[in-house]
Formats: sequence, C-alpha cells, structure tokens
Amino acid sequence: IKKIAVLTSGGDSPGMNAAIRAVVRSCTYHQLECLGVYRGYQGLIEGDFVTLNARSVKNIINRGGTFLKSARSKEFLSVEGRKRAFDNLKAEGIDALVTIGGDGTFAGAVVFNEEHNFPIVGLPGTIDNDINGTDFTIGYDTALNTVVEAIDKIRDTAHSHNRLFLVEVMGRDAGDIALNAGIGAGAEEILIPEQNMGKDRLVASLKRSKEAGKSSSIVVVAEGDQIGKNIFGLADYIRENLTEYEVKVTVLGHIQRGGAPSCYDRVLASRLGVGAVDALLKGERDIMVGIVNNKVTSVPFTETSKGENELDKELIRVADITSV
Amino acid sequence: IKKIAVLTSGGDSPGMNAAIRAVVRSCTYHQLECLGVYRGYQGLIEGDFVTLNARSVKNIINRGGTFLKSARSKEFLSVEGRKRAFDNLKAEGIDALVTIGGDGTFAGAVVFNEEHNFPIVGLPGTIDNDINGTDFTIGYDTALNTVVEAIDKIRDTAHSHNRLFLVEVMGRDAGDIALNAGIGAGAEEILIPEQNMGKDRLVASLKRSKEAGKSSSIVVVAEGDQIGKNIFGLADYIRENLTEYEVKVTVLGHIQRGGAPSCYDRVLASRLGVGAVDALLKGERDIMVGIVNNKVTSVPFTETSKGENELDKELIRVADITSV
Amino acid sequence: IKKIAVLTSGGDSPGMNAAIRAVVRSCTYHQLECLGVYRGYQGLIEGDFVTLNARSVKNIINRGGTFLKSARSKEFLSVEGRKRAFDNLKAEGIDALVTIGGDGTFAGAVVFNEEHNFPIVGLPGTIDNDINGTDFTIGYDTALNTVVEAIDKIRDTAHSHNRLFLVEVMGRDAGDIALNAGIGAGAEEILIPEQNMGKDRLVASLKRSKEAGKSSSIVVVAEGDQIGKNIFGLADYIRENLTEYEVKVTVLGHIQRGGAPSCYDRVLASRLGVGAVDALLKGERDIMVGIVNNKVTSVPFTETSKGENELDKELIRVADITSV
Amino acid sequence: IKKIAVLTSGGDSPGMNAAIRAVVRSCTYHQLECLGVYRGYQGLIEGDFVTLNARSVKNIINRGGTFLKSARSKEFLSVEGRKRAFDNLKAEGIDALVTIGGDGTFAGAVVFNEEHNFPIVGLPGTIDNDINGTDFTIGYDTALNTVVEAIDKIRDTAHSHNRLFLVEVMGRDAGDIALNAGIGAGAEEILIPEQNMGKDRLVASLKRSKEAGKSSSIVVVAEGDQIGKNIFGLADYIRENLTEYEVKVTVLGHIQRGGAPSCYDRVLASRLGVGAVDALLKGERDIMVGIVNNKVTSVPFTETSKGENELDKELIRVADITSV
Repeated sequence: IKKIAVLTSGGDSPGMNAAIRAVVRSCTYHQLECLGVYRGYQGLIEGDFVTLNARSVKNIINRGGTFLKSARSKEFLSVEGRKRAFDNLKAEGIDALVTIGGDGTFAGAVVFNEEHNFPIVGLPGTIDNDINGTDFTIGYDTALNTVVEAIDKIRDTAHSHNRLFLVEVMGRDAGDIALNAGIGAGAEEILIPEQNMGKDRLVASLKRSKEAGKSSSIVVVAEGDQIGKNIFGLADYIRENLTEYEVKVTVLGHIQRGGAPSCYDRVLASRLGVGAVDALLKGERDIMVGIVNNKVTSVPFTETSKGENELDKELIRVADITSV
Repeated sequence: IKKIAVLTSGGDSPGMNAAIRAVVRSCTYHQLECLGVYRGYQGLIEGDFVTLNARSVKNIINRGGTFLKSARSKEFLSVEGRKRAFDNLKAEGIDALVTIGGDGTFAGAVVFNEEHNFPIVGLPGTIDNDINGTDFTIGYDTALNTVVEAIDKIRDTAHSHNRLFLVEVMGRDAGDIALNAGIGAGAEEILIPEQNMGKDRLVASLKRSKEAGKSSSIVVVAEGDQIGKNIFGLADYIRENLTEYEVKVTVLGHIQRGGAPSCYDRVLASRLGVGAVDALLKGERDIMVGIVNNKVTSVPFTETSKGENELDKELIRVADITSV
Repeated sequence: IKKIAVLTSGGDSPGMNAAIRAVVRSCTYHQLECLGVYRGYQGLIEGDFVTLNARSVKNIINRGGTFLKSARSKEFLSVEGRKRAFDNLKAEGIDALVTIGGDGTFAGAVVFNEEHNFPIVGLPGTIDNDINGTDFTIGYDTALNTVVEAIDKIRDTAHSHNRLFLVEVMGRDAGDIALNAGIGAGAEEILIPEQNMGKDRLVASLKRSKEAGKSSSIVVVAEGDQIGKNIFGLADYIRENLTEYEVKVTVLGHIQRGGAPSCYDRVLASRLGVGAVDALLKGERDIMVGIVNNKVTSVPFTETSKGENELDKELIRVADITSV
Repeated sequence: IKKIAVLTSGGDSPGMNAAIRAVVRSCTYHQLECLGVYRGYQGLIEGDFVTLNARSVKNIINRGGTFLKSARSKEFLSVEGRKRAFDNLKAEGIDALVTIGGDGTFAGAVVFNEEHNFPIVGLPGTIDNDINGTDFTIGYDTALNTVVEAIDKIRDTAHSHNRLFLVEVMGRDAGDIALNAGIGAGAEEILIPEQNMGKDRLVASLKRSKEAGKSSSIVVVAEGDQIGKNIFGLADYIRENLTEYEVKVTVLGHIQRGGAPSCYDRVLASRLGVGAVDALLKGERDIMVGIVNNKVTSVPFTETSKGENELDKELIRVADITSV
C-alpha cells in the first residue's frame, strides 16, 4: 500500500475532522501518500479529490463537521456509480480507502468490495452510538455534552417557573443519547424507543413527582420513542391530564450534530485514525476499527449493524433511582 | 425607607439573580432590611416572603433563572388581588418594592400604584430588549451569545452538507435578537417583524447567494416575522422554489432564556440593582432604572412601553454588506 | 443498614455533587435515612452533619465542586481524632459511610476501619485519574475538556503570532491529563512524569517541527514532569536554544478542578453513587466502587493505590503520529 | 479608491477575523479590490500579500485570533522599513489601508503617513479596552466572558475548600478587565492600576469579609496593579497576615486573548469593518473608526492614545456594594 484515500459519509459528527487528521498524519508517518475525497461516495464517483499532507490538516482537530464534507450518494447505490468510483480510485493510483461514517457507509463499502475487491477500512463516525463492534462512536460524547448543556439552560427556566419541559433529542432507533443525557441532565423521565412507557404511566409518574414536592420537571424524549414520536401531541395529552404544570416543548434538533468535539472524541478519533492505517498496513480489509473496553480493535463490516438496540437495564435503574 | 422587597416577574432572564443580589447587598450596604417575594406578584398576594441578607445571595451571580422564581399572576389583574398584595406589604412593614421584569411587570406596577400609592422602582429583566428607556435589558446579551453559539454548531453541519438552515429565534415583536445574532452568526438572511421581506425576495436572494458560490446558508428568523411565523411552511415554500439546497428547520426555543449570564449582563444587573436602591433612597418612584449611553438613568414606567419597534437601518445595512 | 452518611474529602472534582445526589436518592429509593457530613473527615470529627432527602439535592447535578465542602483533616491522622469521628457516627445512629475522594481518602478509611470496624464504601472523586481499580475517576473527563478548551484559546493566539506555548496542566505523578488533553488539543509535544524526554531531545524535536513547516507550537507539560517541573526555567532553556520561536508560558492551575461536570462525569457519578449504596446493602465494605470496562465493580481499598503509573504506549504512539 | 489592503497588528484579539471579513465584504459590496497583508506591518515590508474576495472569508466570523496573523515589526520602526512598505503598497496598486490593532498600531500609521501621505483608517482591536475614542475595543467583551467563566470554575473549588484565590487578569495600565470581570465574577476585592489599595487595607478588608461570614474569597488582580504586580509575593504577604484562609494563586494568562468571539464583538467588528471602508470612501484618513454611545464614529489617530486611565468611580462603588 502506497496511497490511501479518506472520505466522510452520512451525517456529520464532531470529531470527523480529528479522524481525518489522524489518517493523514499516519500516512505521513508511514511515508504513504494520502488523498482526501470530497462529499463521501459522491466525490468518489465524481473524482473530487484533494492531495493531503500533514500541514493540510493543521488547526482542524477542534472543529466540528468535516472539512471534506459529507453527502448521501444515490449514484453509489447503482452498479454504474460504483464502477465509476472504482475507476477513479484506480486512475489515481489509490491502493486503499478509509471511510468514516455510520452503518449505511459500511453497507456501501461491503457492496463495493464484493464487486471490486478493494481494501477498505471504516471508522464509526456518528453521534448516535448505534454501531455494533465499538463501545463508542466518534461524536457521541460531544453530542451528550451538547444535550446536557442545552437542558441545563432549559432547567434554569423550568425551575424559575414551575414548568414541565419535554425535550426531544436525537435517536430514531437507539435511546443511548436520551438515556445518558437524561441521567446527566437530571431528567425526571426519559422516553426511549427500546421501551414503551405508555402515556398513562408517564402522566401517573409525573403526578407522583409533583406530589413528592418537585416544582419543575424535565422529560427527555428520544425522537424514535413510541409515545414521544409526536412530541407536540404528547404535550397536549399531558396538558389535558396533568393540569398542575405549564407544559412546554423544545426540539433540540441539529445543534446536536455540531460543535467543537470533546476531548474524548478527539482522542478517540485520533486513536481510530491511527488504527485504520495500521489495519490497512497489516493487510486487514472489510473491517471497521472501533474501541472495545478502551482497546482499539477491528470487526468485520458485516457485524457492525446493530439490529435491535438492547435495553441497558443498569442505566434504566440508575435513571429511576436518581430521579426519585 | 427602612425595608425593601424585591421580586421577579414575567419571563425569566439570565442576570435576574445578579440583579436580586445587587438589590439585597445594596440594602445591607445602606443598612436597610430586605425581603424577597417568591413568584412575582402572585407571591405578593399570597404573602410568600423570605428574609434576605448579604449571605443569602452568595454564589448566585453566575446562575441563570431567578431563585425567587417568577410567575404570571391572574389575581394581580384584579382590584381584590392588588388590595391583598398591598395589605401584605403593609403587614410586613415594607416601605418600597423593586420589581424586575418586562413591560407587563411595569404596567402592573403602574396600576398598583394608582390604587395604593406605593413606592416602586423597576429593573428591565427580559431577553427581548424590547423596553423603552434602556439601551439594553438584563439577559439580552446572554441570549445573543446563546443563539450565536447554537448557530455556530448548526453551521458545522450546514457547511458539511451544503444545506440551508432556517433557525427560529425569539422575538415576537422585536427583531433585535434576530438581527444582532444573525450578523454575529454570519447568517445569509435575517427575517424580522419590523420588515417584510416577502417569500419571493427571500428565494431570489438565496438563489443569488448560491450562484455567488455559497455552498451552505443560514437564515435567521424572528418568531414574529411575517413570512417566518410559520417556519415549517416557509421551509416547504423554499424547498419547492429552490431545489439546489436541502432545507432544514431548527427552532431554538427555551434554551435562549437560560444559561449562566454573560459578564455584560452580570455587570449591568449589578449596576441597575445598586441604582434601584439609590433611586428609592432619593425618593424616586414609579420609574424604571435603565442604562442609556452606558450611564445608569431612570425613566417613568409610563414611558417604558416600546410601541412599534423601529428598524435599525445601520444594522440592516451591516447585515446586507457582510453577507455579500 | 438504616442510616448512611456521605462525605467528600481531599481535592474537589466536578461530579462530586452528582455522586452525593445519587447516594442520597439511592437512600430514599431504598428507604434509608441519609446524612451529609460537611468538610470531609474534619466534619466527622466535629459532628458537622446535615439531614439530606431527595429534594435536598435538586439542581446540583450540574454544579462543580461539592456542596458538602471538602477539607484535609490533620486531626483524622490521630487516634483521638478518629475516635471522636467514630463516637459521632455512633451518636447519630449511622450504620455506614460513603466517602468520595482520592487515595488519601481511602487510606484514611482503611486505618479508621482497622480501629473501629465500620462499614465504609468509597467512590473515586479526583480529576487526576490516579486510582487503581477504576478506569476513570469522577471529574477526570471534565478536567480534560477544560484543558482542551483552554488550549484551543491559546492556540488562536499561538497561531496568530508564530509562537511556542508551554502549557502546564495538573498531574504530579500521572501524565493522564497531559497525554490525553495533549492529543486532544493537538499539542506538538507532551511532557509527562512517566517518561523523561530530556531538554535536548525536546529542543531537537521542536526544531524539526519548525523545519517541517509548523509555524506555531503547543507543548503540554504535566506539573510532575522531570524537565517541566520548573516550567519557567524550561522556557528559558528553549529560548536560548531555539531562537526561531517566541516562547510563552501558561499555567492552567485551578480552573482544571472546577466547572459544570461533563455528561460522562455526571452519568459516571450517578452510576457509582447508586453502586455505593447497593454495595453497602449487599454487605460489602472496605471497598471502592469503580468502573472497569464500562461495568460498575468493586475493589478493596488496599488495592486502590496506583503505585507507579504505567506508560500508556499506545497513546504515546498516537501522540507521536498525530503531531507529525 | 479602487483597491484596499487590510492587516492586523499587535496582540491578537477575538473578533479580528470578523473585522477583516467585514472589510473584505464591504470591498466586494462597493466593487473594490481587496488585499490581505500577512503579519501586520512586517508583511507590508516583505510584500506578503494575498488577494481576498467575499468567499475567502467564509466561516471565520466565529474564530479567535487572526487568519492574517499578527506580528510586531522592528523594521517598521525605521525609515527604510516604512519606505519599503510604501513601495510595496504602490507596486500592488493599493490606494488605502485598513489597520486593525491597538495604539502602537495607530502610532505606526501616523508616522507612516507623515512620511508617505497614504490613506489609512484604523480599527481598535485589542482585549485591553485601552483606546481613546471608542467605548469598546474589538475583543474586550469576549475577554471579559473568558475571565468570568474561568473564575466561575475557580469559585467552585474556592467555595468547596474555604480558600482565598488571587486571580491575575490582563491589564498592564488599565483596570477595565479586572474591574468589570471582578464585578461579574462576584470577586470580594479587585486590585487595579488606577488605584493603590495597599496591602494592609486589603488584608483588613479580607479579614472583615471573613468575619462577616464569607467562607471563601476571590481577589481579582490586574497585572499592572501596584501591590498585585508581584502576585506570588502578595500571596505570601496575605498568608502571613491572614492565617484563616488557605491562599492560592492563578494567573489566567493567554487564554484571555483567544476563543470564539462573543456576539457583541462579532457585531462590533462587523459594524466597524463596514465603517472603515465607508470612511475611506468618504475621503477620511488618519482616523480610527470606533463606537461611541452605540454609534459608529471616527477620531483622529492622534487622539486615540489613552494617557492615564481614569478611575470609573461608579463601577468601583458597585464593586464595593455588591461584595458587601
């Protein structure tokens, strides 16, 4: 391997820049050439490349987003699109590819590989922490801090007014963000896709909280939760059934994807970026490099899809106890 | 004057605690007694008081919200409610009142005064900066920073994906937050209640931006703007008429009311809190203490209502030029 | 066990309040009484107790420091002092104690236990991450973020002026903060107690960086590093031997101990606080509850002392590669 | 005027990038060419220029420091150096210059102008707020927030341990940062160059605070204060004369110069950047564009030097009262 390309794909996450930087500098360290690909697989198809050296990635470790940009590519879903991508890789003399993204990104890599037998190593870059084979994804820790800081602000207002706030956070299939940020923000209730609380139990529980002397309440709702999916409807239901509180809704939205990465995400991205090049040099391919029990490890792409998210019973219990 | 009461009323804002602290310590300094009233005028009616001394307000200058809590009081709108409030003030031996809040708070004070002839001084505490007679309200500067920091995060994501983001910020009648935070966040367009841009001009302008080479765009929308009122509808309109961008909406909501106050708001609150007690001791009443040209001044309550907000043409021009 | 006391001891760390909160609410959950002890072992000796219930610990999860205050107690080093502490515990009808602190705190608990045979469970609360038997201590993650954010600011200035900055961070015996924050902040060099780089190798390396095109440099120095101990002397040495840079020194100091805890630290503190009460109820004693491979576990106090800190060779390599 | 150059000089400050951006986009708006000069006057002498257009300055409004870099130039102090700078300006066809910096920067401009009669307009870019003719300098508001946030963290620790902290902040000649940040951080005492408190009065005052029930204390010290100049010596003096406290020192240092600019500084920089080009187009020269009573105004360079800083008696009184 003499020349490596790197790209970011799917939703962006804080720490992607730090991961690119680590891949690039690892190439310099191992005296490999490195190319950046703009806009993920789409840039691969369009041949949108840029030569990167150690200095190209200075002063980006602290920046959210991805300077290589990201995109979702329809063309890459087609045989022709992937063929064009492969031709571009060959034309540029690229020997291997590092893709940073989520499970969609890795699924694309698997198909590409079946057709073109090209060495690819993936890195988990998503705020959702919904990838199998790694304890943490790049960007997840930052997103948790962003959510907790936002709810801290909302709490100021909730507490000043004896209000009930429903706060929607990201997590279509996984409640990891809601559960951890909910505990961290001291939420009274946490609604997650893995567990259907039901509207009535929620209202009953909020009623108990009120009676236990709580003057304000925060309910954290993962966007994919059964009863929280329609958060404005849920607010109406609570208003009707729990008149003691003034009920407000805040949807945190895209602020959760951005921001300067936390130290943890920067270090994780740096370790995995270094690990990706190490893996390629050892001849590994079709794998994602992740972190398990604080050790850099690799797992085949085919095992990165999470399937149904398991309920973390310990965290649920901690949430229940600490919101007494 | 020997005994002063202080309360916060209306929507909370960062710096209210700093203002209370300054009032309380000013009382200590001038050897006056000080009482806190919980939950604004409602607490006045219910006699919900707490004795405050210099130590009661330690370690609160940095906290958002108001530890005296705030509320909107329906009872205070009635003659009977106000009579009860007055009786409580007399029963406690209170000689004067400091109210921290917005123009609704001051309007309440005026009516109360007409009926009961009681010395009241107000402080402008609201993030909206919509009070006449003061250049800045307590909490406004903090809200601007909160908005700008949130949009910085959204920009990471917008820029990584070539997206157009509509970001709704507070401001039902006044575009001050939208205009200043929009300039500060480098927004491409800013929609404010004082000026009706029209959907077509907006789309035309965004089209020009795109052609000028901008790959992503942020549009800041005050909640009271004509075409931005229905922000999700506006997003649909843009999607239909400007297919070059992926359009996303974020409603910042209540995070704008909370958070640790900025240095400016803490100093402003401290100066005005001291000024409120000074004014009472000088025999002033029925006035709001504010800041004009960086000097503490006072203005009759009757002149604090802003009426229609004037368009700040210089800022509009700065916004236009810097988003070229 | 019917009544549990909780205290914080040694240097404070962000997340201690969250840990206390979890212990208190766990007591409520298990229908146990809970007492707080002010100022660590000193308060135990003086009988400085406060009854805590679920509502006593509201709105503290987001606050740095410890509302129970901490202190170093000379009296607790004496047989008489510990006897007095024990008598107070008995007099209050306390059945067990949760101590939150570092290895000095646990060492005190061991001696106390030998003399008075009292059930104690410890939680690791220190920013230094220098406790054996837990992967992370409460406060460490927050300190890393604080350091990285501070260096981000210094980098703005360093980069604008082609300067070399020496930044001293905490870590008398352990380089964990320096190494992780150094990688996270993109430092060019990291000096840690576990490894003696030598002044000459440092200067040679900085010279190479300069020649490789770096226009500014950050060197992160753990306070206990051999050549960095006297950081101002080191700066002079570099000035004499590397005239290409303007050399500046910043000692981050106590800002590293404070601040709102990160989400990770809040969740960790909550899990360990719940775990401490669980452990006591299971009859465990003389142990610290920590986190290993993301599972709550316990380890005897006698095994919490770290001895010499091992060099984390993977991180050293990541630091070397990413600063190429 | 058809072609304008812009440079940053002296110490960097947050908002300089926003100011450059506004100058560049103002040029685009008025259809003028714009050149950036790297490293201040030194780059002028070396002819280190870069063509800037509206897109060159995207995504920099939120970044601390200055992407044009800054430097102090010895050569510019000589007639020959300035001659070379002038020749480079002529060779590039530059008609006017915008310099962003402090009074040293403006003094250089004055001399340059006397010799070469070249249109120059200055903008006040420094965290020190020590320029005459403007109420606020670009970067000052951000520095205040940085200091206050740092002291908030120190307060966590101070309060947890009953400690006295001496915190040194920037301000060699002016106490503006110390005084405002001191009030904002709730400091017990504030030492500034404009007023010599004397060690004995300081100790006496701290003693009174302790007796009044304060358990911890923060003393903010401007680096140029008479008794605070040697802050470690002052700490020793207090230790000897006030044994009730454990005394700690933190020197905030260069973190005060960096960081993402506050909204206020971004808007101020945008307004002044626009104002600088407006002034040049109106034929103004040898002036600094500043802000007075929230209006953009101009003042001759010769009147920007502050001379001795006046004591702000109102703020001193507010500090005294709110630290009761």
